[in-house]
Amino acid sequence: MSGPDGKPRVLRIALLGCGSVGTQVARLLQEQATDLSLRAGARLELAGIAVRRPSHPRPGVDPSLLTADAMSLATRPDVDIVVEVIGGIEPARSLLLAAMKTGKSVVTANKALLAEQGEEIHAVSRAFGTDLYYEASVAGAIPLLRPLRESLAGDTVRRVLGIVNGTTNFILDRMDTSGADFGESLEEAQALGYAEPDPTADVEGFDAAAKAAILAGLAFHTRVTAADVHREGITEVTAADIASAKVLGRIVKLLAICERSGDGVAVRVHPAMIPRSHPLAAVGGAYNAVFVEAQSAGRLMFYGAGAGGTPTASAVLGDVVAVARNRLAGTRGPDLSTYAELPVLPMGDTLTRYHVSLDVDDRPGVLAPVAEAFARHGVSIQAVRQTSRGEEALLIIVTHVARDAALAATVSELQAFPVVRAVASVMRVEGEEDPS
Amino acid sequence: MSGPDGKPRVLRIALLGCGSVGTQVARLLQEQATDLSLRAGARLELAGIAVRRPSHPRPGVDPSLLTADAMSLATRPDVDIVVEVIGGIEPARSLLLAAMKTGKSVVTANKALLAEQGEEIHAVSRAFGTDLYYEASVAGAIPLLRPLRESLAGDTVRRVLGIVNGTTNFILDRMDTSGADFGESLEEAQALGYAEPDPTADVEGFDAAAKAAILAGLAFHTRVTAADVHREGITEVTAADIASAKVLGRIVKLLAICERSGDGVAVRVHPAMIPRSHPLAAVGGAYNAVFVEAQSAGRLMFYGAGAGGTPTASAVLGDVVAVARNRLAGTRGPDLSTYAELPVLPMGDTLTRYHVSLDVDDRPGVLAPVAEAFARHGVSIQAVRQTSRGEEALLIIVTHVARDAALAATVSELQAFPVVRAVASVMRVEGEEDPS
Repeated sequence: MSGPDGKPRVLRIALLGCGSVGTQVARLLQEQATDLSLRAGARLELAGIAVRRPSHPRPGVDPSLLTADAMSLATRPDVDIVVEVIGGIEPARSLLLAAMKTGKSVVTANKALLAEQGEEIHAVSRAFGTDLYYEASVAGAIPLLRPLRESLAGDTVRRVLGIVNGTTNFILDRMDTSGADFGESLEEAQALGYAEPDPTADVEGFDAAAKAAILAGLAFHTRVTAADVHREGITEVTAADIASAKVLGRIVKLLAICERSGDGVAVRVHPAMIPRSHPLAAVGGAYNAVFVEAQSAGRLMFYGAGAGGTPTASAVLGDVVAVARNRLAGTRGPDLSTYAELPVLPMGDTLTRYHVSLDVDDRPGVLAPVAEAFARHGVSIQAVRQTSRGEEALLIIVTHVARDAALAATVSELQAFPVVRAVASVMRVEGEEDPS
Repeated sequence: MSGPDGKPRVLRIALLGCGSVGTQVARLLQEQATDLSLRAGARLELAGIAVRRPSHPRPGVDPSLLTADAMSLATRPDVDIVVEVIGGIEPARSLLLAAMKTGKSVVTANKALLAEQGEEIHAVSRAFGTDLYYEASVAGAIPLLRPLRESLAGDTVRRVLGIVNGTTNFILDRMDTSGADFGESLEEAQALGYAEPDPTADVEGFDAAAKAAILAGLAFHTRVTAADVHREGITEVTAADIASAKVLGRIVKLLAICERSGDGVAVRVHPAMIPRSHPLAAVGGAYNAVFVEAQSAGRLMFYGAGAGGTPTASAVLGDVVAVARNRLAGTRGPDLSTYAELPVLPMGDTLTRYHVSLDVDDRPGVLAPVAEAFARHGVSIQAVRQTSRGEEALLIIVTHVARDAALAATVSELQAFPVVRAVASVMRVEGEEDPS
């Protein structure tokens, strides 16, 4: 492994963060050293690991590599590649900006940073001619960003539809199989380590929304940030919703949906009912899967482990080999392409279908005014199912495709109806043709 | 779109072949011209199309672009990128070698050429510093080679298991759903255009074997040719095999299997029974799907349209944009990596499970000598099912994991048994844990 001058080629890596992903990156850099060097074209040497508490013992990690001074490590002249697996905005943002300004190639798994400050960090990457790779930021080990950015560069992506958060998928899976409610299923996920003690980022959809922003940006060659994503989490999903979906041959999943729609793009994350026959319905537990519909390629699906230290480390190391090859060749990977500059449409303009559950008085004459309210807002009803429960009845209405704003207006009108005791839930229906 | 000298940047493309894929490539180059130029960084201009009969009218294709002189077109000084969609070894081989020797970047969908003459064309690509991209050669529109070559460059692939031939998948699907035999299902596939008038390349497994060789080479960083692949087609699959699989909760698929095994790699294409619960079991019609098992990433699946003019053109154009970007940046993509140089193991050393159907005399005392024959060769039996059919009985034996050579020796011994009227079929069982 030597360069044109006969000297052995070495690229030195600074690892920022040593949690579940960082530990595996450090281990694999060591264990797979020979293979990685033969694939990259240079020996990949770990120059240092920045952690909060360097005195904390870490089995398998050489303590002399540990430092608390992340900034010095990220900008050290002998470092070629900076791998960031800290997560969150700061200090990750400052560290990566400084690293790129001192000419380092950057590999990161940081979805929040890319979705919230993507414009700034891509601009610095471009200005300083350094690589910025982030395959691990979305869907863990699943190769997804490289296919979108490169394999589909000659195609027009119409739609990306995916399950990109394993924690919520695990919880919804439990609710579906056991009939448990959200709270019980969350507790179970926490006990098994699938959910964090503070589960907000997952269950409120923030994690999925950041990933949706990244996917939409790549798919549509447009700048999309986390703030552009309409976001609803799963905390309001009830056991009754899950049961009703079941009766209708559907299952509830938290979906990230990125669509070309009219003259713009729509990006949203929310729970939705999909048919049990849909390939995404079978994606269980902590797995991720993403459908991509492109004009020429048709429907593609990518499936695999969406999180976890080792799978995510696989994606990080794939990027490390790629930036190493680029660095040795004196080049860099393709820039983020945002030339299309499509507007991000407001959620109200989204066209989709709805499953509305109403608690109504159980007496004749209830359906007519409810149906009229839908009609007044131009929302066409596809199916109605009424179940008596004593004095009260459960009225379930599934609509044809409608504008989100029209549905919202309908629901708000229904809430004021005397016969409607409560709007128990409103959930979107995705992944199936609208029967006419 | 201008270069550093202010001149407009243009890259000129020679298209060799204008069949179902070529026609779509030509159409999309025109229809998507603006998007492609913004993604590639240069206007992509069609310089000419080589066809056998230039006088033949082709709707939508400018006749002035057509030429019968493929060699002149492929080596013309004003051509930058050569796209080959002729297929087969010659003249494709000579044209691509000449194109690379005159500095053109090459994009090809030619699996046979890569699987049979891969070493030569990769060597010329390396020697002349030109790009050689071939995503479209395996599994049509599904991004598969780029993920294997780049996304998994930091991982160790253990196994690739896939359905990579749509024609045979369609035929086996028909046999499974209708109970028809191979001949009838082939005729139906031919009538619908899913099978060629001469179906040999598909039904005898040559097409899948070429793809398996390409996949194994990339997955294991080892030189693998079509001749290294153990190949069995689907012409011997009977309606009885399909029915027996069904009874056992399995389905018959033509699989391409590439495995790390001991100190080498094993690459094979043959029909096999897989559980109906396996994700590949649900891959119907002309679709393709490939499972990749890697040490860190775990199990990944890629799914989509495996053939067809437009999907394959999507993969070709993705490569065209990639080689255009490389050309403008004065660089080239990663070389084929074959450093591992693992030996390709003989089929006899393969370890897998078997489903053996025997027509035997229907009388007591038949099973004992049959079971003894398996035991003598060290093949352990997992399950036996005997069905009486008058004078004769059908004896179905499913084995535990065994060496292929041991199974073959067992079968050859059984054929000489007086009580065994015929060995009706031998099929491998894949995609499930061996129950102990």
